Amino acid sequence: MSAEPEPGLERNFKLVIEYDGTGLAGWQRQPNHPTVQGHIEAAFSRLTGQKVSVVGAGRTDAGVHSRGQTAHFKAKTRLSPAELLRGANALLPRQIAILSLKEVPLDFNARYQALSKIYDYDLYLSPVRSTLNRRYAWHIPAELDLTSMKLALESLLGEHDFASFQSTGSSVKSTGRRMLEAGLTAKPDGLVRITLEGDGFLRHMVRAIVGTLVEVGRGRISPQEFEEILNAKDRSLAGVTAPAHGLCLREVKY
Amino acid sequence: MSAEPEPGLERNFKLVIEYDGTGLAGWQRQPNHPTVQGHIEAAFSRLTGQKVSVVGAGRTDAGVHSRGQTAHFKAKTRLSPAELLRGANALLPRQIAILSLKEVPLDFNARYQALSKIYDYDLYLSPVRSTLNRRYAWHIPAELDLTSMKLALESLLGEHDFASFQSTGSSVKSTGRRMLEAGLTAKPDGLVRITLEGDGFLRHMVRAIVGTLVEVGRGRISPQEFEEILNAKDRSLAGVTAPAHGLCLREVKY
Repeated sequence: MSAEPEPGLERNFKLVIEYDGTGLAGWQRQPNHPTVQGHIEAAFSRLTGQKVSVVGAGRTDAGVHSRGQTAHFKAKTRLSPAELLRGANALLPRQIAILSLKEVPLDFNARYQALSKIYDYDLYLSPVRSTLNRRYAWHIPAELDLTSMKLALESLLGEHDFASFQSTGSSVKSTGRRMLEAGLTAKPDGLVRITLEGDGFLRHMVRAIVGTLVEVGRGRISPQEFEEILNAKDRSLAGVTAPAHGLCLREVKY
Repeated sequence: MSAEPEPGLERNFKLVIEYDGTGLAGWQRQPNHPTVQGHIEAAFSRLTGQKVSVVGAGRTDAGVHSRGQTAHFKAKTRLSPAELLRGANALLPRQIAILSLKEVPLDFNARYQALSKIYDYDLYLSPVRSTLNRRYAWHIPAELDLTSMKLALESLLGEHDFASFQSTGSSVKSTGRRMLEAGLTAKPDGLVRITLEGDGFLRHMVRAIVGTLVEVGRGRISPQEFEEILNAKDRSLAGVTAPAHGLCLREVKY
């Protein structure tokens, strides 16, 4: 006999997670590295007294930030969603916070039921390096032709084989994805935000697109050549992979 | 006789400086503490081979950021403004950058000729603590009545004795200042920006105004009471001094 209350039936919880990826080894749990999944699993395991597995909508790379990564986990607990939220945020390191936690039906799956994801990539255009944006935007010490970049982005809309923009060495079955939004906004203080919404993204896809797009902005690749690179389905034609720290997973839609 | 080229005549240079105040002990030079003035003087002293004194438009406190702090320094040098800019940015630590450097007439004084300064103070409104904004915005875990805050801000416009909003223990001769702009903007992602432009600011004045304004937003002080606090010229009536890390000196006008 135990003094502990009955753990109750299994329940399923949906999380929305914000993190500053600086200094984190990405989403996916890895031994001896600080990861978002690892920290969150440790927090909920401690709160529920069970070994908890957290399933994320997608894996973000080391250094990538999030305002809307979504995940689920199952546990037998009598704690309320509000108690789990407060408890986890008290245990998590300061660069990770659970923005919301809701109980959802047992069949909810954060990974397989995601309809689309929205990523923001921030560029900082300035002849001088950044101080305040240095962790959150890619510094480009040049002026960029934003009109050409917008034209190039339009060619991404709709269904395409994005093989040109996946990381070399990837081996997913299908490289076909649908791009729902591809836009660019000039913001104050030299920031330019590229926003991509798609039903799925290949490994390093946003960063490869942004790296190639910056070449368009510099006038080294025309918007038409950008479209040809997309249609060629050949990674060797695209530009560099933009650095991780400019990227932020904004939202996962269900 | 020396192999060095003649240093030339004395010249005067105007600087615009961006800094991330996190971990810095503020603008003003202090022995054994990392300060903006100290770092910049060290950089230009090394570049020019002379002991350089840098005069800032104003002193920002420890932890306060800047996108537009302005300063001047005089030196005998044959280096061009572009060379001084590049050289200084190469020597300065990554949280400090010179955004622009121009040669100005010898009588230009960054402190005495400043016509006005613009400060931004960012609040982060969320029930959950911040990860991405934690260094740059004051986290308020409550909803605020922004309409009342805007009304209160309006009472600051024009000439006033701001003694209610200076730090206790200050002993400036006059506490009269003219407020040229006092506004509030709701931004995406839970951020609220308070912007104040004035011909001068007392010590901790922006932070004392913001601390009191948040009390208005919480409904603890009415906009009318805020105006009464201003008119009372009594620091003990105002709210807390808001933390330094939400504050950024945006621009100094000449």
